[in-house]
Parts: sequence; C-alpha cells; structure tokens
Amino acid sequence: MSQLLRVQNFAVSRDGYAAGEGQSLERPFGHADPATMMSWAGATAHWPNRTDPGGSRGLDDYFTRDYQQNIGAEIMGRNKFSPQRGAWEDHEWQGWWGDEPPFHTPVFVLTHHVRPSFSLSDTTFHFVDADPATVLKQAKEAAQGKDVRLGGGATVIRAFLEADLVDALHVAVVDDVELGGGVRLWESPDELRDRFHLDVVPSSSGVTHHLFWRK
Amino acid sequence: MSQLLRVQNFAVSRDGYAAGEGQSLERPFGHADPATMMSWAGATAHWPNRTDPGGSRGLDDYFTRDYQQNIGAEIMGRNKFSPQRGAWEDHEWQGWWGDEPPFHTPVFVLTHHVRPSFSLSDTTFHFVDADPATVLKQAKEAAQGKDVRLGGGATVIRAFLEADLVDALHVAVVDDVELGGGVRLWESPDELRDRFHLDVVPSSSGVTHHLFWRK
Repeated sequence: MSQLLRVQNFAVSRDGYAAGEGQSLERPFGHADPATMMSWAGATAHWPNRTDPGGSRGLDDYFTRDYQQNIGAEIMGRNKFSPQRGAWEDHEWQGWWGDEPPFHTPVFVLTHHVRPSFSLSDTTFHFVDADPATVLKQAKEAAQGKDVRLGGGATVIRAFLEADLVDALHVAVVDDVELGGGVRLWESPDELRDRFHLDVVPSSSGVTHHLFWRK
Repeated sequence: MSQLLRVQNFAVSRDGYAAGEGQSLERPFGHADPATMMSWAGATAHWPNRTDPGGSRGLDDYFTRDYQQNIGAEIMGRNKFSPQRGAWEDHEWQGWWGDEPPFHTPVFVLTHHVRPSFSLSDTTFHFVDADPATVLKQAKEAAQGKDVRLGGGATVIRAFLEADLVDALHVAVVDDVELGGGVRLWESPDELRDRFHLDVVPSSSGVTHHLFWRK
C-alpha cells in the first residue's frame, strides 16, 4: 500500500473555520475556544492527553484511536507550532507542545524563517521553507513507508488541497459552534466532492464527522 | 490502560443471527451467505484479505483498520475453527483459515475435545476445554499486555456476556438480511443497554454499526 497524506481529527466550526481571529500565545485558537472545538475528542478513551483510565469507546473513539496508526511523520504550518510571526526572536521557546509533544515522529514545520531542528522527547521538529510537494517528499522519506499526517492549520491544508496532494481527510464539524470569522477551511464540504468520496457521520457528541477519500 | 476483551467486526442479520442453519465444510455460515454478511467489510481498504490496492476509506474502513490494533490474542468457538463436531477425526485438516490465517496472534479455540497446539504462519492455535473466565485468563497472559479479541461465533459471545467478561463490542447489523433462524446473538441490541453504553451508527454501505462499551 502506498504512502498516503492524511488529515485527521481536524475540527472546524459549522461555518467552516478551524481557528478564530487574533491568535496569540495565550489564545492559540484566537477567539475560538479550543475546549469546545475538541471536547468530542477529549471525552474519548484514546485522547492522547488523557491521564485517567476512563473515556468513551463509541464512534468518536475510533478517530482518536486512529490518530497515530501507521503515521510516520507530520507536516504542520508555523501557526500550529507557535504564535510568533516573522524572524524567530526566541529560540529558547520550543513551541506550544510541551516537553512530551503528542506526535512521536518527525514533524515538518512550514515557515519562511528556517531554524535548526531540535527534539523534544521522541518528536523532532524540522523547519522547512519549501512548496507543498517538496516538503511532502521529505516527510514521506522520514516516515519510512508509513503515512504522513497533515496536521493543519486550515491554511496549510488548503495549500495541499490546491496542489492535489491530500489522499484522505477526517474533519469533525462542531455543529453548535459558529465563529463568523477566522481561519477558514472551506465554505462548504461540498467543495471537495468532485475529487473525493464523502461519508457524513453524525455523532452523539454533537459533531458530524466528514470522511473524505480520493476518487 | 488495562487489557480489554473486545468483539470486533461481528456481523449479524437484522433479526440478530450471526450464522444460518446447517453449518458444513462447504457452508461455514449455514444457509446465511457470508458474502452478503461481510460485503461492507470486504469493500474497505483495510480488509485483511484484500489483494489489490483499492478499497473505500470512509466509515466502514475505520472498523477493518481497527481489527488488529492492540490485539494480542483471540478467543473463538470451535465452530469458527471447523465444522467438525465431537472427537477430532482428522488432525491433518487445520481449520478453515488457510496457510496464512488473518489472526497473527495466539488463538484459543474453545472445545470439549482438546488436541495439540499447532502454528500456521504467525498464528498459533491452542485448544482449551475450560470456562470463559479461565480461557480469558490464558488469553490475556498470551496477549502480553494487549487486548484480547472475542472472535465468536454468537454462542461463544453470549457465554462471555453471560459471565460479564466483555468490555466492548462492535456489531455490524446487516439491514437487508433477515435469516429467520440459525445461531442468534440477540433478540435486540437493547438487551445490552443496562450494562453498556451504545452508539448506533448507520453506514452508507447498508449496515448499522452498533458500538457498545461498558458502563
């Protein structure tokens, strides 16, 4: 089976925004509330940050359970790594993900301002100034035969969709949240139907899972 | 996380039968048609017996994808291993599963007629005459920290449910098939609601996934 580029557990509001306006160190999702956007995932047994043995094992858990499966690398945008813009001012600060990042693989951070790679626990961050096809080639090589996760944010996913490099997407639409502005993934999931099959699966947690795979 | 006993990808007719009447070497599912019962799974990219690179990657694929994940052993009834009844007459015949069984772990076959263990590729079959709790203890030990799959058939699953040993079940109800007789899993999925949470998830393939996990 060939190596795929997969989007997983990516949450957007009913109106298609993945993050709000005004991203900062204190508010990684801008005016959007990450707790509301991700509570469907946080309630599951396989949520990577879970510290107690509980959690649901229903539909939503199949998605958090699948998060690491057969993933050998991740590609993310700079804004998923850090709120800093422009030249790096502080190399000491090593991103939002703490000493034990939940990736456990090489991570390729897209940025116009490269800096030296570094490792935190079993995650290594590389900083790459390249077009989607080039960074995907690097990530596939690092993934050693496994798939590559496209971690977002929305701007990065849109760029890879535009370059027609995405093989499968799982997007959780949070039915109760309307953001009205911010960083948009889509106007409507129907935009992808020409190139992708789509399963639409409502969950009792209040999100509607959208599962796309290439035609 | 403790070791669980999980039922996975277990298909039943709309009226609750997992196999028809008259099981034989030629008809492992009796008068039920295995192709109809399992076509939802066979269409997915992760179907274990798939030989070509295609297949769907929507909802149903999350279930076939999960089949091996964190599984270290399987428990099955004798009828899932073979149509033979009573004392083994032919030790040469090594079950329905061919030279490359899809289990890749130790498998514990419940039978009143024990016989020596043997391996086919990376699957080892053990034959055990014991009550559910005892065989589960053996299987958990063999699974080395991973979960144990309860493979069926329906009679075996019912016995383990009766002993309250099952932690999670995924049952695919095939909406278009009514068997009217055979080996029954349940009269209705509601029977399990007192002990289990339940997510009911219809798929575009014509099955309705029932996901149970312990309260």
